Amino acid sequence: MTNLIFHQLFEKETFTYTYLLADSSTKEAVLIDPVLETVDRDFKLISELDLNLKYVLETHVHADHITGSGELRKITGAKIGLSGIYQSDCSDMALSDGDEIKFGEFLIQAIATPGHTAGCMCYKLDNMIFTGDALLIRGCGRTDFQGGSSDKLFQSVREKLFSFEDDYFIYPAHDYKGFTHSTIEMEKRFNPRLNLEVTKNQFVQIMSELKLDLPKKIHEAVPANMKCGAPATEASVPIISAKMVHEDLSSFKIVDVRRADEFNNELGHISGAQLATLGPELEVALNSLSKQDKIVFVCRSGKRSEEATKMAIQNGFEHVFNLEGGMLHWNEMGL
Amino acid sequence: MTNLIFHQLFEKETFTYTYLLADSSTKEAVLIDPVLETVDRDFKLISELDLNLKYVLETHVHADHITGSGELRKITGAKIGLSGIYQSDCSDMALSDGDEIKFGEFLIQAIATPGHTAGCMCYKLDNMIFTGDALLIRGCGRTDFQGGSSDKLFQSVREKLFSFEDDYFIYPAHDYKGFTHSTIEMEKRFNPRLNLEVTKNQFVQIMSELKLDLPKKIHEAVPANMKCGAPATEASVPIISAKMVHEDLSSFKIVDVRRADEFNNELGHISGAQLATLGPELEVALNSLSKQDKIVFVCRSGKRSEEATKMAIQNGFEHVFNLEGGMLHWNEMGL
Repeated sequence: MTNLIFHQLFEKETFTYTYLLADSSTKEAVLIDPVLETVDRDFKLISELDLNLKYVLETHVHADHITGSGELRKITGAKIGLSGIYQSDCSDMALSDGDEIKFGEFLIQAIATPGHTAGCMCYKLDNMIFTGDALLIRGCGRTDFQGGSSDKLFQSVREKLFSFEDDYFIYPAHDYKGFTHSTIEMEKRFNPRLNLEVTKNQFVQIMSELKLDLPKKIHEAVPANMKCGAPATEASVPIISAKMVHEDLSSFKIVDVRRADEFNNELGHISGAQLATLGPELEVALNSLSKQDKIVFVCRSGKRSEEATKMAIQNGFEHVFNLEGGMLHWNEMGL
Repeated sequence: MTNLIFHQLFEKETFTYTYLLADSSTKEAVLIDPVLETVDRDFKLISELDLNLKYVLETHVHADHITGSGELRKITGAKIGLSGIYQSDCSDMALSDGDEIKFGEFLIQAIATPGHTAGCMCYKLDNMIFTGDALLIRGCGRTDFQGGSSDKLFQSVREKLFSFEDDYFIYPAHDYKGFTHSTIEMEKRFNPRLNLEVTKNQFVQIMSELKLDLPKKIHEAVPANMKCGAPATEASVPIISAKMVHEDLSSFKIVDVRRADEFNNELGHISGAQLATLGPELEVALNSLSKQDKIVFVCRSGKRSEEATKMAIQNGFEHVFNLEGGMLHWNEMGL
C-alpha cells in the first residue's frame, strides 16, 4: 500500500508555509510554495526522504517573499506550475481551473480562486486543500494589488472553497498566529471576514477599510517571482500581464506614455486610457495623480512604460505597474 | 466513529509547539505544553471546537518560556499533569513512567525520558510521540541544567524512543528551522547527535562542547513553571527538588549555608556538601567558586538557602538553585 508523505514547513521571516507531498512507493514528490531562503532546507529534506521532485506548484505570484521554485528546478529538474493568468514565461505549466497534477498514485486538482490576485490557484489533494492566500485561517489575503478583487475573492471562497465537505482540511500559505491548519467548517463558522453570516457587500467594505501598507518586498518580489525567483535586476519594475489588467480593468488608472500620434494609430489604445507622453507631459500628469492610485503604464512594447513606472516609483507612487508587452500584447488577446 | 481532533500550534517568540488533542465524539481534550502568551488563542480554539479540556500535560518544567497550564486550569478546570520527579506542589497528577491518561476513546501513555531535565516525560498516542525537548527534529534538548544528563538522554532516546516503530511520528516541543514533525526512522538515520552511528561517548562529548548561553528567561521561567506558570514574585529564585538533586548528585556542587552545629546535628547533611554559613563565610566561599559551577544551596527548610541563591545570582552565578524544603525534604526521601 502506498502512503502520502506530507510535510508542512514554516519560513519564519514571512510566516510562509511550504508543503511537501510525496508518494511513499514511487517517491514522486510535489512541493507547493517554496521560499528562496529555505531552498537548502527543503532540498535536504527531499534528499533525505529519497524523493524525486516532479513538480513545484505556486498558489500565486507572491508579493511578500521570493519563490524558491527556480532554484529547485535548477537542482532537481522539477517542472514549475503556475496559473496561466499571470502569463509568466518562466513556468513550465500554465495551469487552468480543473487541471490535474499526478504524482505516484496521487492526484492534485487545480482550483482557480481569483481575488487575492487575479491568478490565485488552490490545490486539492483528497480532503486537503492548499489555499494559498485565498483563504487563511480566520482570515484571507488582501485584494488591493496584482489584479486583486474583493468581489472575486468572496465568490471564490464562498462558491468554490465552501462547496467542499465541512471536514476538509485547509492548509494556507501563511499563518501569523501559530495555527497550522483549519477545516472548511471552522472557516464557515469562525472566519471573521468570510463566515456564512457575512454578505458580499460587508466583505467588500471590510477589505476596503484595511488600509494596509504595501508588503516591504513587493517591488522586488513580484518581478522576481514572475521569473520563478530569478534575482531582480536593478532595472526591473513591477510588471502586470495584459490578461490581469483586462480582468480587473475598472480598478486601474491606465496611463499611456506614447506619443499622441501612436495613441490613435493602428494599435489603438486601451479604453479609458489617459495620454501622457513620456517626458515633461508625464511629469505634469504624475503631479495630478494620487500616490495611492493603482496605475498601469502602457506603451507600444513595454519599454517606455518601464521608464515611466520607474519614474513613478521614484516619485513615491506605491501601486504602479508596467503593462508587459505593451499594446502589442494587449492586442494579441484579440479583444 | 470517533476521530482524533489534532492541532499543532506554534508560539513564535520561543519557537514552541503546543498540541491540542481531542475526541471528536465525547469532546474531551488534552493540551500538551501550552505557553502563557498564547493561552487566549488556545482557549478560543478550544471554545470554537466546543471541547472540554480535561488535562494539560507538561513534557517538562520549561526553562525558556512560562507555561500556560495554570491559567488554563483556572479557566477550564483542567487537571495538570507533570512528572512526579519535580515534586511540584501545584500539579494535579504527579506522573510516572507508564501512566495512562484517557480522553474519550483515546489513551495517552507517559514515557519517562530523563536527560534534558531529570523529569522529562514523552507522551505517546497511537503512532504519535510528543517528545518535548528529549528528541527534537535533527537535534535534542541541552543537558546542562535542571538535573540534565547526557548519559541519561542518550539512554532515553536510543533505548526508549528508538524502540518504537520506524514510521511513528515525532512531534517535538520546539523547532527552530520550520519543521513540524519527523519520524523515528528519520531521526535514527539523520539526527546528527543521536543517529544510530553515534556512540554514547561521542554524544556526551558533543553535548559537553555546546557551550550554550543560559535561556534568557530561566531564572524567571523555572520557578514560575514549578508553580504552573504563576508569575514569579520578586523574591523567587530557581528551585530544585530533592529528588532531582539526588538523581544527579555528582553533577552539582552542594553548598550548605547553615551553622556548623546544624551541619552535624540530627538532620545531617548531604554527602559531599561544603559548609559555608550564610553571611561573611558564604561571601568568601562564593569568591572561590566558578560562576559556571552548578550549585545547589541547602539549609534546614529552604529559607536561608533562598537568600544564598539570590546572593549568588546577584554575584553573576548562572547555574544556581535553591534546594526546595531543605534538609527536611531531603530526609523525607528516606535515603
